[in-house]
Amino acid sequence: MPESKPAQKPDWLIPHGRAWEITASRPIYDNPWIGLTEHEAIAPSGQFTPAYGVVRFKNLAVAVLPLHEDGAVTLVGQNRLPHGDYVWEIPEGGAPLGEDPLEAARRELREETGLLARDWRCVLPKLQLSNSTTDERGIGFLAMSFEQGETDPDATEDLAVARVPFQEALDAALAGWMPDLLTVAMLLRAHHMAAEGALPPELARLMLERSA
Amino acid sequence: MPESKPAQKPDWLIPHGRAWEITASRPIYDNPWIGLTEHEAIAPSGQFTPAYGVVRFKNLAVAVLPLHEDGAVTLVGQNRLPHGDYVWEIPEGGAPLGEDPLEAARRELREETGLLARDWRCVLPKLQLSNSTTDERGIGFLAMSFEQGETDPDATEDLAVARVPFQEALDAALAGWMPDLLTVAMLLRAHHMAAEGALPPELARLMLERSA
Repeated sequence: MPESKPAQKPDWLIPHGRAWEITASRPIYDNPWIGLTEHEAIAPSGQFTPAYGVVRFKNLAVAVLPLHEDGAVTLVGQNRLPHGDYVWEIPEGGAPLGEDPLEAARRELREETGLLARDWRCVLPKLQLSNSTTDERGIGFLAMSFEQGETDPDATEDLAVARVPFQEALDAALAGWMPDLLTVAMLLRAHHMAAEGALPPELARLMLERSA
Repeated sequence: MPESKPAQKPDWLIPHGRAWEITASRPIYDNPWIGLTEHEAIAPSGQFTPAYGVVRFKNLAVAVLPLHEDGAVTLVGQNRLPHGDYVWEIPEGGAPLGEDPLEAARRELREETGLLARDWRCVLPKLQLSNSTTDERGIGFLAMSFEQGETDPDATEDLAVARVPFQEALDAALAGWMPDLLTVAMLLRAHHMAAEGALPPELARLMLERSA
């Protein structure tokens, strides 16, 4: 599976200037998932910033794209509170910081879809989801080669599961019908791998073809 | 520029089950950029949820990938407070909800890089950045065909600007060296467009080739 990796960090990635200097911090809110702290800080430009609210996340966002050998993907549908909408996404969940992300990915995939995967690839290893306001981090795995087991959803979840041709899922993501950014990025990453020869050729062909 | 669009929403996108029911809300925090409200709610599963903290965003996250005719992209580097790190990203900013996102994209690109683009395409029209916890929305534009003007950064910003070959930027994003998820998704979206024939052929060739 050829996929070129950058051999070393390019020079342009080096940091410049000075970091934000936090001069005071006030804890505002805390629950099992997030905390909010308001900082007084001096910006890299030297500007005094009296009230920079930062949301700290207690879990790593773990995303799993289950890719079947016929080129279909498994998606889950659920009602979300923050946007008050119903969204289809790839299986995702939170891993307590410190838990092995791959173990969390296995658990979330099994709980939400019942799928047990033999082939796991970490294809988006380090993500920041909204880095001006939160410290939420994420990671994306491609899962392949499945056995079907039982689902075991969280107590608050009422999940629907659908198996969808890859191009139909990607089209829906690009049209804005499946807006979850981790889902959009992971479907595009899978397209990238298929186009660049980083997946088995027959699978890549099935993913890239469009039913007429 | 052929790029297939889904003609109509597939059936599997329809909602299932019942929505979250908010039974009480307590405002916790507010600043010019975000607010935090703690909700008491009944989950779609029927489970009572006593303390669901939701972060509301007052701006739309606007991301711009500036793609030059030689296949290079313009990136900006800055220190970020929430992660305490230095990150390279595509130009991004916040558009007050209600502002035309394209106007905001033009402004952010000009302020951060001095670039004035003639060709704008909305290529990721509707994004949710972290939809279990925040209501932050985003949008992604591809900008092409430039004139160079003056930069005009925000008072807190101390930005570095770099012009980087497309594959070098994409490689850095996929390696985790450029972790901003909007940046990762937009670089993958540009790769997708180049591979699918949605960009001028010579530009696509320059983007997809690797310097040996």
